Amino acid sequence: MTDTGKSYHKQCTGEALQTAQRHAADEDITLFAGCFCPFVQRGWAALEYLGIPYKVHEVDPYKKPQELLEVSPKGLVPALRLSNYTPPRALNESTVIMDFLEDLASTSTKRTLLPPITDPYARALVRLQSDHINRTLVPAFYRYLQAQDPTAQITGEKEFKAAIEALVALFERADKEVGGTGLWKEGGELGWADIMVGPWLFRADKVLKDYRRFEMPEGAKLTAWLKRLFEHPAFKCTCSTDELYLDSYERQVPYAFNRPNTSQVANAINTGRGLP
Amino acid sequence: MTDTGKSYHKQCTGEALQTAQRHAADEDITLFAGCFCPFVQRGWAALEYLGIPYKVHEVDPYKKPQELLEVSPKGLVPALRLSNYTPPRALNESTVIMDFLEDLASTSTKRTLLPPITDPYARALVRLQSDHINRTLVPAFYRYLQAQDPTAQITGEKEFKAAIEALVALFERADKEVGGTGLWKEGGELGWADIMVGPWLFRADKVLKDYRRFEMPEGAKLTAWLKRLFEHPAFKCTCSTDELYLDSYERQVPYAFNRPNTSQVANAINTGRGLP
Repeated sequence: MTDTGKSYHKQCTGEALQTAQRHAADEDITLFAGCFCPFVQRGWAALEYLGIPYKVHEVDPYKKPQELLEVSPKGLVPALRLSNYTPPRALNESTVIMDFLEDLASTSTKRTLLPPITDPYARALVRLQSDHINRTLVPAFYRYLQAQDPTAQITGEKEFKAAIEALVALFERADKEVGGTGLWKEGGELGWADIMVGPWLFRADKVLKDYRRFEMPEGAKLTAWLKRLFEHPAFKCTCSTDELYLDSYERQVPYAFNRPNTSQVANAINTGRGLP
Repeated sequence: MTDTGKSYHKQCTGEALQTAQRHAADEDITLFAGCFCPFVQRGWAALEYLGIPYKVHEVDPYKKPQELLEVSPKGLVPALRLSNYTPPRALNESTVIMDFLEDLASTSTKRTLLPPITDPYARALVRLQSDHINRTLVPAFYRYLQAQDPTAQITGEKEFKAAIEALVALFERADKEVGGTGLWKEGGELGWADIMVGPWLFRADKVLKDYRRFEMPEGAKLTAWLKRLFEHPAFKCTCSTDELYLDSYERQVPYAFNRPNTSQVANAINTGRGLP
């Protein structure tokens, strides 16, 4: 990203700030974070839910400090530094980090975000949900956010809503076939797909609502699920205040006004390439 | 895909045909296959390697029979029909099918394509390889194949080669950090990333070589790995004869001449959207 010269948030706020302050001491795992990044929030919520000890290290996304470049050559967050190796090792890519944390927890804290390994079909339904989120819903979010002219904004809204509705259909399939997955199931626990999609739906509910007058599709089950997700302790404790997201998407990440060459995510969307 | 009216292969040939004939009897798992589809080959090679009983059912990709639409509403292969449920269940998406088969084998045949769960970091390195294959290497293959004018072909070749070299760099990182993964490691076994990428490199070696005068990047380790991969029994037994691929990409899937509106993959590449 290019520094636009304006002042911008370099640190999370609200509950996320309190959580970061509780995780400021050295641990084997350090999460390199950026305060408004939804990809970071995936790894952070997973660490919280799985009960894995970690340190969180917020970096200035416009200045890419050397310590970030050491663990993430492209300077992208999230990144993990694993200090229990000499020299320390590093991991990138939010979905790879999710799999790593899930695998790590399976032999340490014994918590899990996926259905048990003894139910491969239920796990596959969750992988289908996750595949849809990564390949359709998340790109639709960015196309909508970046759309400038009214026609593109109407198409953007339509496609983003359709992606949410298709996710609901996948959740309903899981209801029917395996008795429900994740928090969509009443009385269920935070799951893999909840964390995969939560950061974007949370931002949609603030940023798209404000900049695009976006309203979530209607439906009592969808509304109840979103409430359970946004209020789940492991998710909520990684959320900053609304103001941070509104400021960040308007002032720092100028998606809302679609200024070119401002971020790797914006460039990928504008050139039709996959997200970085 | 649209039937171009020409005759085309509806059935695999060579070793793949013999394998299909050995797997023609009913089983709990049916793989719906299309004879030239690289995404299908992933699931097929995984079934073979993991030792999971299966039936293979080849469908005419231009005619999408009703039985395919029942397991795959968009008519895409690969699809699995799971007949041990009433009514039968179904799964789509090659990566989801790979995870399903890996999970299934972990509690049945005990074979595995991923490093053991007790080594989450080695597994994460394989997931990074796989993420690169799916988000960069496979799309680069199609852009190169579809490129018409010489400049686009030069760019296509450059990007595809760079994607292969970046995969090699990830393999070398795994050599250094965890003593190697999959078949890249001398004396290693067929692994997750080998199956994820094999179908495209195999086709590149036939189809891109013929239509684009493509040559694999040089390097003794790369050459030796490709030989081990293409000759691995679980991979080789899912390969048709060269003629089928050359015919299919030229005559049936007109990527090589980039006729528009001919396949969902071609449309996705042409519009800059994710692969279906």
